[in-house]
Amino acid sequence: MEDTYDFGLVGLGVMGRNFILNVADNGFTAFGHDLDAEKVKALQEEGGDHAKVNASTSIKTFVKALKQPRKIMLLVPAGKIVDSVIESLLPHIDRGDIIIDGGNSFFTDTDRREDYLQAKAINFFGAGVSGGAKGARLGPSIMPGGSKSAYTHIKPIFEAVSAKYKGEPCVAYLGPKSSGNYVKMVHNGIEYGLMQLTSEIYDLLKKVGDFSNQELHEVYSKWNEGRLQSFLVEITSKIFIQKDDLNLSKLGLLDQISDKAKQKGTGKWTSQNAMDLGIPVPSIDIAVSMREISALKVERTAADALYDKPEVKKIDKAELEKMAEEALYFSFIMTYAQGLHQLADASKEYGYNLDIATITKIWRAGCIIRAGLLADITEAFQAEPNLPNLLVSPNFVEKVKGTLASARKLVAHAAQNGIPLPGLTNSLTYFDAYTSERLPLNLIQAQRDFFGSHTYERLDKEGIFHTEWE
Amino acid sequence: MEDTYDFGLVGLGVMGRNFILNVADNGFTAFGHDLDAEKVKALQEEGGDHAKVNASTSIKTFVKALKQPRKIMLLVPAGKIVDSVIESLLPHIDRGDIIIDGGNSFFTDTDRREDYLQAKAINFFGAGVSGGAKGARLGPSIMPGGSKSAYTHIKPIFEAVSAKYKGEPCVAYLGPKSSGNYVKMVHNGIEYGLMQLTSEIYDLLKKVGDFSNQELHEVYSKWNEGRLQSFLVEITSKIFIQKDDLNLSKLGLLDQISDKAKQKGTGKWTSQNAMDLGIPVPSIDIAVSMREISALKVERTAADALYDKPEVKKIDKAELEKMAEEALYFSFIMTYAQGLHQLADASKEYGYNLDIATITKIWRAGCIIRAGLLADITEAFQAEPNLPNLLVSPNFVEKVKGTLASARKLVAHAAQNGIPLPGLTNSLTYFDAYTSERLPLNLIQAQRDFFGSHTYERLDKEGIFHTEWE
Repeated sequence: MEDTYDFGLVGLGVMGRNFILNVADNGFTAFGHDLDAEKVKALQEEGGDHAKVNASTSIKTFVKALKQPRKIMLLVPAGKIVDSVIESLLPHIDRGDIIIDGGNSFFTDTDRREDYLQAKAINFFGAGVSGGAKGARLGPSIMPGGSKSAYTHIKPIFEAVSAKYKGEPCVAYLGPKSSGNYVKMVHNGIEYGLMQLTSEIYDLLKKVGDFSNQELHEVYSKWNEGRLQSFLVEITSKIFIQKDDLNLSKLGLLDQISDKAKQKGTGKWTSQNAMDLGIPVPSIDIAVSMREISALKVERTAADALYDKPEVKKIDKAELEKMAEEALYFSFIMTYAQGLHQLADASKEYGYNLDIATITKIWRAGCIIRAGLLADITEAFQAEPNLPNLLVSPNFVEKVKGTLASARKLVAHAAQNGIPLPGLTNSLTYFDAYTSERLPLNLIQAQRDFFGSHTYERLDKEGIFHTEWE
Repeated sequence: MEDTYDFGLVGLGVMGRNFILNVADNGFTAFGHDLDAEKVKALQEEGGDHAKVNASTSIKTFVKALKQPRKIMLLVPAGKIVDSVIESLLPHIDRGDIIIDGGNSFFTDTDRREDYLQAKAINFFGAGVSGGAKGARLGPSIMPGGSKSAYTHIKPIFEAVSAKYKGEPCVAYLGPKSSGNYVKMVHNGIEYGLMQLTSEIYDLLKKVGDFSNQELHEVYSKWNEGRLQSFLVEITSKIFIQKDDLNLSKLGLLDQISDKAKQKGTGKWTSQNAMDLGIPVPSIDIAVSMREISALKVERTAADALYDKPEVKKIDKAELEKMAEEALYFSFIMTYAQGLHQLADASKEYGYNLDIATITKIWRAGCIIRAGLLADITEAFQAEPNLPNLLVSPNFVEKVKGTLASARKLVAHAAQNGIPLPGLTNSLTYFDAYTSERLPLNLIQAQRDFFGSHTYERLDKEGIFHTEWE
C-alpha cells in the first residue's frame, strides 16, 4: 500500500474523521493517522474499503502510504501540538511535500512555521476550515493560504470536498503566508458578532413582546426564509423547539442551558488584532465582552439583587417582530462591514493581497457565517474591489437606510427598559460614528495637547500645532 | 563631585528636566544625563546651583556623580531605547544599585528586564508617572513596582516629589515585578474612557441643547465644583474658552482643532490585556475604537455624504445639563469600575498582590484621572478590600441608582437622533449586563453545541452536556 493514497490526514477526532470520509466520498483515496488506536480503528471500520480509506498509528506507515508530493492535512488542536506533529513528520517526508494546518492556529504561528518549513523545501499551508463537524463531513468552507504553486496539488481535492454555492466550490486560494488563518480568524470574529446579535434579539422579543419559545421558533424560521437567511438564524429557529433530552423540565431545553458562554479565543484574537491595525470592530469587541460578562455568573447574581430592573414597556408583537427583523439585518450588515474592513487593512499590513469578493464568495455556503447577505456583499465587492467599507456601496446604502429607523427605536427602547442589546447598540454607534464627517474628538486632541503637549492638527491650516493652554 | 548626588535621571526631555528640578526643589541633589548637549546645558542653566542640580553627556561622569546605592531613573521613550540605556549603564554601575523605568513600558518588557538585571544583582523598578509635564514639575502621581526592600531607598525621594492629597503623598509601593507599569497602563485605559466621555457629552450638549463654547465652559466649570470634580473636567472647561493663538478664526481654538485623535498605545494595551484576562472593559474598548474611527476622516467624510442625519430633537438647556451631569457621573463610575476590576484580576493572574485602595489613594492627586470620585472609591475599597466590583459597594449602589435614569434617557435620545454616545452607551450596557442574573447567552451555548459539539452546562443539574440537535 505504499505511494498509493491521494491525501493524508493527521488527527482523527470528529473533524478529522469526517473530513477524511468526505475526501473518500469524492473519489480520492485517503489515509489517516492518530496515535490513538481506537480512533484509527473507528475510521477503518467506518471507511469500509481499505483501498479507499485506511489509517495507522504509525507515522512512518502513514507517510509511506501517500503519493508524492504528499498532501498531509493536520486537524489537531492549535498550539504546541501542531509543532510537535510537524516535527514527527519531518524525518519521513520529502522536499516538495505539502503540510496543511486545518486548525485555528494564530496567524503569526503559521508565518513562523512556514519560514521554518520553507528552509527545508516543504510547502506549508494554513487553511481554516469552517462548518463544524457536519460541514467537515458534507462540505465545509475552506480558507487556504500559502504557496500559490503548491496549491495546484491540493486544489482538486479541496474543490471536491468543499461546500458548493450554486455549483461553485467554497474554497479558493486566498493569498500567501498566514492569509488563510487570518481570514478564518476574522470569520470567527464575525461569527461572535452574529451569535451575540441573534441571542440579544431573542432576549428582546421575549422580554418586550412576550414571545414564547414556539413563537420564537416561528419568527426565526420565517426570517430564515427572507433576507436574514443564514445558518445561525436557521439553527436558532431549531434550538427554540429542541426537546430536553433529560426530560428534566417541561420547558424546552434552551431554558435549562446555563447562560455562561465559553470561548476558544478566535473572537478575542480578532478584536486584539483589529486594535493593532487601528481598525474599529466594536460589534465584535462587545461580543467578546459579553461572553466575558456571561462567565461572571456569581458576580452578576450578586449585583442583580442590588438593583431594581425597570418595568418593561411592552411593544405589540407584530410591530416588534418587524422592527427586530430590520434591526437584526442592519446589525448583521454592520458586523460584516467591520470584519471585511479589518481584512482589507490586514491585507495591506501583512502583504496578503486579498481579494475580498473571493473571500465572501467562499463564505456563501459551508461555513458558520454563511448567509444570503453574502451574495449581495460579494456583488458589492465584485463591482468595486477596493470598496473602503460596505456602508458606502450603493446597494448597501439602500439596505441600511431602510432598516436604520428600527435599529434606532430598539436601541432606545432597550436602554430605557434595562435590556442589554450590546451588539445592536455598538452596531448603531459604529454607523453613527463612521458616517459623521465631524466627531467631537477635537476635544480629545485638545486635552492631549493640554496635559501632555502631544500637539494637534487644525482644520484650517496644514501642520502640527501646540498651544500654551491657559 | 563624585559620590555626591542623591538621584540620577537619564533622559532630559520635558518630563525628565521637570522631574529632576522637582527633586531638587524638595531638598535632594540630582544629576542628569542625556546624549544631547543642548539638553544638558539647558538643565544646568535652569538648575542654577550646580551642587544641587548638574548634568553630563558622559554616562561615566553621570554614574560616578551618584551616591551608592545609586538611584537612576529613566524617562526615555518606551521600547528598545530603555534596553539600550540599561546596557550603557551596566559597565559603570554596581551591585545593589537601582534602575527605575519611569516610562510607559509594556509590562512584560519590565518583567523581562527585571529578570535580566536581577541576575546581575541590580534592582529594577517599573514606575509609571502620571501628570504630564506640569505634574512632573510640581508633583505627579507615581506608581512603582519592584523589589520591596529596594523601595526603601527611593521612597523618601518619591514621597517628597509626588503630588499630595490632603498631605498624603501620591506614591506607594504597589507590588512586585511589573505591577507598577501594569497599574499605570490601566490608569491610562481609564483615562481613554474618561476623555471619550467628556468629549461625547460636549457633542451632546452642543447638538441637543445648542450650548455655545462659552456656555460649555460655564457648565464644565460648575461641574468641576461638584461631584464631577476632576482634572479632565477642569481642563475641558478651560479648553472651551481657549483663544486661537493664530487668530485664524473668530471662533475659539477648539472648533479649529482636527477631530482625528491620536493614541500612543496604552489604552489599546489595556483593552487587549483585559481580553487576555477575560475581564470586560467595554467603556475602554469603545474609547479605543472611537480614536480609530476618528482617524478615518476621509472615509467618514465620504460616508457622511451618503446618509441623511435625523433632525435633532432639542431638549431644554437646564434639563439637558442636569441629565448630562448625571450621565457623566454614572459613566465615570462605570469606567473606574471596569479598570479596577481588571486590576484585581491581573493581581491574581500575575501575582502582583495589589491593594486596590492603595492604588486609588495615589490617584487622588497628581495624575490625569484624579477626581473627587477617587476619594469615595478609596473608601469603598478600604471598607471592603476584596470588593468584586465597585457596583456592589453600598455607597456606589446609591450613586448609581440616582444617576441611572438620566443615562438611560440620554442613550435613548442619542440613538434616536443619530448622535454617537459610545462611552455612555457601553457604560450603560455594562451596567445592564453586569446586573443581570440571567443573560441570553444560553442561546450562544446552544449554538456552539449545535454546530461544534462544544457542550454546555445546565442550570438544573451539575455536569457537562451535549445534545444531538434535531
